[in-house]
Amino acid sequence: MPDEEGHPAVEEILLGPVLSALADPLRRRVVRTLAAEPEGTARTCSSFGLPVSKATLTHHFRVLREAGLISQVSRGNSRMATLRRADLERRFPGLLDLVSAEPEPPQAAT
Amino acid sequence: MPDEEGHPAVEEILLGPVLSALADPLRRRVVRTLAAEPEGTARTCSSFGLPVSKATLTHHFRVLREAGLISQVSRGNSRMATLRRADLERRFPGLLDLVSAEPEPPQAAT
Repeated sequence: MPDEEGHPAVEEILLGPVLSALADPLRRRVVRTLAAEPEGTARTCSSFGLPVSKATLTHHFRVLREAGLISQVSRGNSRMATLRRADLERRFPGLLDLVSAEPEPPQAAT
Repeated sequence: MPDEEGHPAVEEILLGPVLSALADPLRRRVVRTLAAEPEGTARTCSSFGLPVSKATLTHHFRVLREAGLISQVSRGNSRMATLRRADLERRFPGLLDLVSAEPEPPQAAT
């Protein structure tokens, strides 16, 4: 079962929710950005500079978290997001590489 | 440019539309089924036994075609669908393997 924060266990990470999460260009940008950082990097939601409202930002990170792509922990007033790199590589080997290889779109196109 | 049937050229196949197409479980079932067939197998849309109306079936196959996952040709009164296996492998190596590896869900769950 997912924990109380909505993080699925590794064996609960399913292809359907992962692909649905990655179907959105802004969510792919978050994953691509985290994948380019050193292992274990934790970032606040606002640090990604997504051009959306706070409510939409919260929604996007919830989708990523519930699909199993990221984990989030509260730190002070912020929630820090970390890529579940090893879990994803175990469940869907190569998928993160495909997302990382996607060219960054022009800002206006996202 | 996509041809008059809406097939993108191989270099026009983009990750976003491909992931959006694959986010749907019925569309993944079509791709998984075709991927399990011999190279070049062409099947009618109705042969997949999807539990949807004809209009919805047409919609799903259009999404797959326009994303670049399948090609469709008319043959008599039917449209035959073929997986663009080589094109997909060239653009997104390993992606079809991930879709193929997904367990077939119980019929009721799709």
